[in-house]
Amino acid sequence: MALMTGEQYEESLRKLNLQVYMFGEKVENVVDNPILRPSMNSVKMTYELAQQPEYEDLMTTTSAITGNKINRFNTIHMSTEDLVKKVKMQRLLGQKTASCFQRCVGMDAFNAEYSTTYETDKKYGTEYHKRFKEFMRFVEENDYTVDGAMTDPKGDRGLPPSKQADPDLYLRVVERREDGVVVRGAKCHQTGMTNSHEVLVMPTQAMKPEDKDYAISFAVPTDTEGIIIIVGRQSCDTRKLEENADMDLGNREFGGMEALVVFDDVFVPNERIFLNGETEFAGMLVERFAGYHRQSYGGCKVGVGDVLIGAAALIAEYNGVPRVSHIKDKLIEMTHLNETLYSCGIACSSEGYPTESGNYIIDLLLANVCKQNVTRFPYEIVRLAEDIAGGLMVTAPSEQDLRDEKVGKYVEKYLKGVKSVSTENRLRILRLIENLSLGTAAVGYRTESMHGAGSPQAQRIMISRQGNLEHKKELAKTIANIKE
Amino acid sequence: MALMTGEQYEESLRKLNLQVYMFGEKVENVVDNPILRPSMNSVKMTYELAQQPEYEDLMTTTSAITGNKINRFNTIHMSTEDLVKKVKMQRLLGQKTASCFQRCVGMDAFNAEYSTTYETDKKYGTEYHKRFKEFMRFVEENDYTVDGAMTDPKGDRGLPPSKQADPDLYLRVVERREDGVVVRGAKCHQTGMTNSHEVLVMPTQAMKPEDKDYAISFAVPTDTEGIIIIVGRQSCDTRKLEENADMDLGNREFGGMEALVVFDDVFVPNERIFLNGETEFAGMLVERFAGYHRQSYGGCKVGVGDVLIGAAALIAEYNGVPRVSHIKDKLIEMTHLNETLYSCGIACSSEGYPTESGNYIIDLLLANVCKQNVTRFPYEIVRLAEDIAGGLMVTAPSEQDLRDEKVGKYVEKYLKGVKSVSTENRLRILRLIENLSLGTAAVGYRTESMHGAGSPQAQRIMISRQGNLEHKKELAKTIANIKE
Amino acid sequence: MALMTGEQYEESLRKLNLQVYMFGEKVENVVDNPILRPSMNSVKMTYELAQQPEYEDLMTTTSAITGNKINRFNTIHMSTEDLVKKVKMQRLLGQKTASCFQRCVGMDAFNAEYSTTYETDKKYGTEYHKRFKEFMRFVEENDYTVDGAMTDPKGDRGLPPSKQADPDLYLRVVERREDGVVVRGAKCHQTGMTNSHEVLVMPTQAMKPEDKDYAISFAVPTDTEGIIIIVGRQSCDTRKLEENADMDLGNREFGGMEALVVFDDVFVPNERIFLNGETEFAGMLVERFAGYHRQSYGGCKVGVGDVLIGAAALIAEYNGVPRVSHIKDKLIEMTHLNETLYSCGIACSSEGYPTESGNYIIDLLLANVCKQNVTRFPYEIVRLAEDIAGGLMVTAPSEQDLRDEKVGKYVEKYLKGVKSVSTENRLRILRLIENLSLGTAAVGYRTESMHGAGSPQAQRIMISRQGNLEHKKELAKTIANIKE
Amino acid sequence: MALMTGEQYEESLRKLNLQVYMFGEKVENVVDNPILRPSMNSVKMTYELAQQPEYEDLMTTTSAITGNKINRFNTIHMSTEDLVKKVKMQRLLGQKTASCFQRCVGMDAFNAEYSTTYETDKKYGTEYHKRFKEFMRFVEENDYTVDGAMTDPKGDRGLPPSKQADPDLYLRVVERREDGVVVRGAKCHQTGMTNSHEVLVMPTQAMKPEDKDYAISFAVPTDTEGIIIIVGRQSCDTRKLEENADMDLGNREFGGMEALVVFDDVFVPNERIFLNGETEFAGMLVERFAGYHRQSYGGCKVGVGDVLIGAAALIAEYNGVPRVSHIKDKLIEMTHLNETLYSCGIACSSEGYPTESGNYIIDLLLANVCKQNVTRFPYEIVRLAEDIAGGLMVTAPSEQDLRDEKVGKYVEKYLKGVKSVSTENRLRILRLIENLSLGTAAVGYRTESMHGAGSPQAQRIMISRQGNLEHKKELAKTIANIKE
Repeated sequence: MALMTGEQYEESLRKLNLQVYMFGEKVENVVDNPILRPSMNSVKMTYELAQQPEYEDLMTTTSAITGNKINRFNTIHMSTEDLVKKVKMQRLLGQKTASCFQRCVGMDAFNAEYSTTYETDKKYGTEYHKRFKEFMRFVEENDYTVDGAMTDPKGDRGLPPSKQADPDLYLRVVERREDGVVVRGAKCHQTGMTNSHEVLVMPTQAMKPEDKDYAISFAVPTDTEGIIIIVGRQSCDTRKLEENADMDLGNREFGGMEALVVFDDVFVPNERIFLNGETEFAGMLVERFAGYHRQSYGGCKVGVGDVLIGAAALIAEYNGVPRVSHIKDKLIEMTHLNETLYSCGIACSSEGYPTESGNYIIDLLLANVCKQNVTRFPYEIVRLAEDIAGGLMVTAPSEQDLRDEKVGKYVEKYLKGVKSVSTENRLRILRLIENLSLGTAAVGYRTESMHGAGSPQAQRIMISRQGNLEHKKELAKTIANIKE
Repeated sequence: MALMTGEQYEESLRKLNLQVYMFGEKVENVVDNPILRPSMNSVKMTYELAQQPEYEDLMTTTSAITGNKINRFNTIHMSTEDLVKKVKMQRLLGQKTASCFQRCVGMDAFNAEYSTTYETDKKYGTEYHKRFKEFMRFVEENDYTVDGAMTDPKGDRGLPPSKQADPDLYLRVVERREDGVVVRGAKCHQTGMTNSHEVLVMPTQAMKPEDKDYAISFAVPTDTEGIIIIVGRQSCDTRKLEENADMDLGNREFGGMEALVVFDDVFVPNERIFLNGETEFAGMLVERFAGYHRQSYGGCKVGVGDVLIGAAALIAEYNGVPRVSHIKDKLIEMTHLNETLYSCGIACSSEGYPTESGNYIIDLLLANVCKQNVTRFPYEIVRLAEDIAGGLMVTAPSEQDLRDEKVGKYVEKYLKGVKSVSTENRLRILRLIENLSLGTAAVGYRTESMHGAGSPQAQRIMISRQGNLEHKKELAKTIANIKE
Repeated sequence: MALMTGEQYEESLRKLNLQVYMFGEKVENVVDNPILRPSMNSVKMTYELAQQPEYEDLMTTTSAITGNKINRFNTIHMSTEDLVKKVKMQRLLGQKTASCFQRCVGMDAFNAEYSTTYETDKKYGTEYHKRFKEFMRFVEENDYTVDGAMTDPKGDRGLPPSKQADPDLYLRVVERREDGVVVRGAKCHQTGMTNSHEVLVMPTQAMKPEDKDYAISFAVPTDTEGIIIIVGRQSCDTRKLEENADMDLGNREFGGMEALVVFDDVFVPNERIFLNGETEFAGMLVERFAGYHRQSYGGCKVGVGDVLIGAAALIAEYNGVPRVSHIKDKLIEMTHLNETLYSCGIACSSEGYPTESGNYIIDLLLANVCKQNVTRFPYEIVRLAEDIAGGLMVTAPSEQDLRDEKVGKYVEKYLKGVKSVSTENRLRILRLIENLSLGTAAVGYRTESMHGAGSPQAQRIMISRQGNLEHKKELAKTIANIKE
Repeated sequence: MALMTGEQYEESLRKLNLQVYMFGEKVENVVDNPILRPSMNSVKMTYELAQQPEYEDLMTTTSAITGNKINRFNTIHMSTEDLVKKVKMQRLLGQKTASCFQRCVGMDAFNAEYSTTYETDKKYGTEYHKRFKEFMRFVEENDYTVDGAMTDPKGDRGLPPSKQADPDLYLRVVERREDGVVVRGAKCHQTGMTNSHEVLVMPTQAMKPEDKDYAISFAVPTDTEGIIIIVGRQSCDTRKLEENADMDLGNREFGGMEALVVFDDVFVPNERIFLNGETEFAGMLVERFAGYHRQSYGGCKVGVGDVLIGAAALIAEYNGVPRVSHIKDKLIEMTHLNETLYSCGIACSSEGYPTESGNYIIDLLLANVCKQNVTRFPYEIVRLAEDIAGGLMVTAPSEQDLRDEKVGKYVEKYLKGVKSVSTENRLRILRLIENLSLGTAAVGYRTESMHGAGSPQAQRIMISRQGNLEHKKELAKTIANIKE
């Protein structure tokens, strides 16, 4: 079963015994919960597209570990071509879901772990790489979705792990046994946790020698005892609970989800531990994961942007102004910004290079540049979409009003745009733009673009480090004829 | 009763017999409806502050019509000082409500009508100005809130009123009687309609001779027969319906509202008609109203911006990073942008001048420049606030989770920031930022900033017209020593 | 002789015995030097316009000291109306010269000295204010141009005055006599020094007690013994030396100039000393001068911007594309940005208030916001002008080629735009745009916009200090219902 | 002689008999002319680097036509790797010259001609491709520099070629002979014409059937009879004529040049004609050339940007503020913008694909996105460099002043920055920044970035055409569940 169908994936989730909480209640049926289901549908799309011949080249690949055909989301990248195809796959998924499809985090964690474990072993004679390859084999063979978990709560940001009032604000080892360790702490903003079979935990930042207990990486099933998942609220989340919710959702089928995941003294067996106290490799793991994940945004957000640009072009048509010059110019600007993001995603991939372990890593400078642009351009694309959409996007009555016997006729009559398009379709497009600008999808398209894979300042620090200012100074001295 | 208290205002609304619909149902108690009440509270604040000695100078003034002390929202501006104080009053209200407080639209309509009726009468010997002054006297004496209604649905934007498939897509006179007219049509995006006593209707754009029936302006009580109010949905609107909704709202007390207002054959008596077929004055009325309203945004949105900047500064503190240089710099940038908007609001006011009727109008070029900046800077201020806030703003669990016996302790423990601040207060500020970035208030702070008082392109057309390019060309020719 | 004519001004300069150096040589005839003369012409314009009835209201005013009619450049502002008119006068001069007209620095220094000397006296019982008023009376009566001198060389920016390797890198008192002091040091970037009768020196920054010798302010004639003026190079400066230089200059008549002014042991008599060791008032003087000068940029650069916008509109016409939508839109954007700057200039003025001494000061927050925008928008206006102009602006042959017998016909033929405009006039406008984008005027319109009156970071520090973040935090807490 | 040395290149130019005019005079010795020589040095660098083993891989390649080792500037790109290396070579040259090195235009013309002639032949049975390959063989074997000439004067931009008052404002065939054609017209903005052996002429835009005589492409030696070269002025051009010019130039060694090239009835033999009346292929040739050339800017301008970033970092050091947070942040922003440009250059290359003729073309959408960013970011990079540099960049005295016996000591003393750096070196770096911001190199780094390879609007039209809006609309309809 190297490739699950969408149905098989959905069924596999039903077998999990997740501890999920939302609105102060335990969610008994996670898969069919109306607030969570759209996020499951997004992940499911990664399985469905892999079944379609049309997308086979992008969605599947040959495992470097087993030689089997696998979903590209579970791949270890072995060439720049792999890195480029990853970005294209992500753009495709963005286009198909207009949401966060969640499965990238695991993929990016796999590739960071693969090379970091190799280099840790080389220095310490540990066997993390072998263990990790075993884990990958298991994931690939089961076509699992894995949540890559990095961000700790961090408490007071001005203090390091070991100085926090509460030592658990960074996830840490609280007990060491012969057969494994017990960990305590939490991971914030966990994308797709309720739709994952396994969770692959990494440290949240570079560590100092005194942070030994915090330098821990491992994988466990998502329904391991002690793991509690508390789902985060999203803008407009409960709109999904409305009766006959459809039009007003904008995107009724797909969505994303994020959760606070608590590790309340969770046991991890030795064979699932991939870093354990080798503090100087925590930074490498974080930097590489972040690098891959910053590349990812040059694909996924571009795909979502494609949908938003299409929606803006449609509403211009439905409003009767598709050929007005300032409208056309705004659509060009949206396209320009979106393709600039894509260029960054492609460039850091095609400029990738092999690590010591043999898998390929992106160009770190360009990947950080990519993500930095992602913290800016989607906001401007949204602003332009709101400009084109017009105010009706936030003042249109509800679907129930449109369907209402008494006032429906007024909504129908007065919110009609061009003759050839129904009021309903006009409202549908406006709701989609609302969804991406202010609603559930805005969480993914805006705020996640800002903070996912690291907040803007994190990229600036990396750009500073990778920018090789010394070389540039030498160039300037030569031109200016400076002799010292 | 020249000045009502907040309580009196609220009671006065209860006496109205409004036809309000929402989610496919008639709203029986508009004042206490949980979705609408926050918008009522915002308007109520305009009454409450007028009672406080501290704000008397800003909130009240002496009527140019009656000599009585009145609320400044019902004033005819008689000096540039009046215009400047208007902007300061609006900033104050924005600070106190972090919302759209809705009463400006009427104020701006009053001042546009005042001078336009005067000039129409001068040309046509009509008596609109006298009628309008009577209406103003009535409004001032009752301290009423009046909805200024301008935006027609417009249908196919590529076609003029008289070419629309449905002639009612622009509001028009459908019957002319001796004692008045009957009108049919609708007004979109009606801010504060459910909190208003009267509605003052204006045409939506400059009209041509063939659009005579569309060149109509009048005022009627909001509960006049034939007026149907269909409330628009806002992002996160139903969050207000949640049990014990408080923290998750971000701003539980205040909000805005907008509605589609249908005029289903409404009778207007002659004494309430202020324009009726004098097509060439429709454009003047629109241009002046838009001018005043574009000035308004240089006050109200600045006040809301103040709250958002304050919230961003607080969350930086609560996260433990108030002295980090990039955070400080982002707060400076937010302040800089916000005060640039304020400068534009002040400048177009202090550069105002008297109309023929004696009331003061803003500098139209600068007022349009003001609004044009409002279509940009709040978006950037929001983006920076999201940057400072961190991702938790969109992934934090619900208030119910925090209160929950089982998982509340985890939320409490893991979402704690600096030691001295409670998790609850940290979450409260995050929810306020969410409210202004993605939630109900984002409708006012973002999309309304874009489209209220005219979409960006409308300002650009005015800037082009008012920019006096010919004079600038002459300056350049002189400097370049060009002789023709 | 309260008001000199332009001619009288020019003659008065001839009487000065300035020590001016340029290109390694002493300039014997400063007034007629072809590189310096355009800058003299710009200052001269401040005299000429004051003679024209049309501009009397803007250019002249009544002295608060003598009651005489004086040039507004020599005024102590006694109302917000004065502050607003100052900005309008500056815009006018910018329009007439398309250059830096240099006389503002003195005006801004006057007003800062006026109030600071008053407050210093109040604390220390000194008589600086009386002395300063005497000085002002002298300046007003002679209608002199005064150079306000603030910026010290500063050497290593990371070190305070008293820690510099060379103590003279901040101007300081090196000898104290009964009848006065001897100063040594230099002032950089001195705008208009060669066109000024007097120089009014101020400290360059807030001082600490140990910097007593650096806390010195005074005025002396520009040709005082020991003052050496070394003129700075500007882009394209020597183009003014070319034979028959006219077209290629873009602006042959007007320009600006800046110099390094050395004070090589200059004696200052007591009656001309306005601060002498009262270190805590150095900061006040700097802050107020900078405030006034930041306001100034909301006038002068706007006037220059008007010329550039006019030039861009003309070249669009001459190229045959005045009605192309993207061209029109760029002209609108240029106008929008320029008027935003103007709004800031007006707003900080109309929000001014009296100091203890009675003269009026601008709103410091808004003045800093004004200047901060000036460090950005002229650059974008220039970029848009270059966009509209087309590449010919930097590839067109020289005037000599156009005039040449052999190749002139080719230039004439091939660089012709629309039929109705001569090639010469088309090239003239292109050269004007070049002048403002890359040439001598770009020094004033771009780099001086950046650094004049303080570099961008200086404004950000002031915005931070003046932004009242604590008040904003309180507003946010109230809205978020935070109780501590 | 497949690869010339720099010396050989210089000697080969001496043998040309070019008709060059400048400042109304014929230039007799073009190679040693002080204004032109720096531009020759820049091209020479393309020969010199090709001799260095260190750069062999980037600078040379194997000819697809002859199999010989050739300079990459003369290559027909046969893979995406070739396209990527092209961009890297251009970045290298930009770093080494901080100027426009001119040889790209020919390279980009070669590749556009190669595929367009192939497709023209296929349709019309002509033999342009064979002829063009012969020409390429000749160029490669001689290691020549070829000027690609596209931009016609165009006269009234609102009119097509055949409607111009003067028919010669677009270059055209004026006589058709058996052995060839005679052409008349001119090409504007010809980069590097005085440093080229041959000129390869292309039409300036897509043509209509009535424009047959304008659809002409050919190559001739640059010293062919009838070709007159009139050199364009640059900002600060004559500074190069100053005695001992060195420091004040900023970059004394390298530069660019552009000229108006007149074709005054030039004969072109048949074997050098590559398009002749097949009007529908004019557009293809233009689009492909523009595409390649827009890619180029993602390399060359990035290299120049590297130098400017280095210079800004150095002056920060020399001023004593290298660790100040806002300075560091500005350097990061400059790097970020520069690497975004590079990402676009790389992405359009790595996404290239083969044409029918077998050579590789870039992704046209991404190449246009690349160039569009080049019309924006260098301006912002320059603005930030000016911010960091400080005002001294435009007010520092001349080199002669520094060397002067009398005032040199003052310049030396007062313009000293940190102790460890000489005043001279500090001034050198400031002059380099001036050179790139306002001086001769600003022509290349700013204005040419704007208009070279087509003005911004040209890219927007291409982005609109290539953006596939229809596909995006379909994506949006699917998500919004719109059924028609």
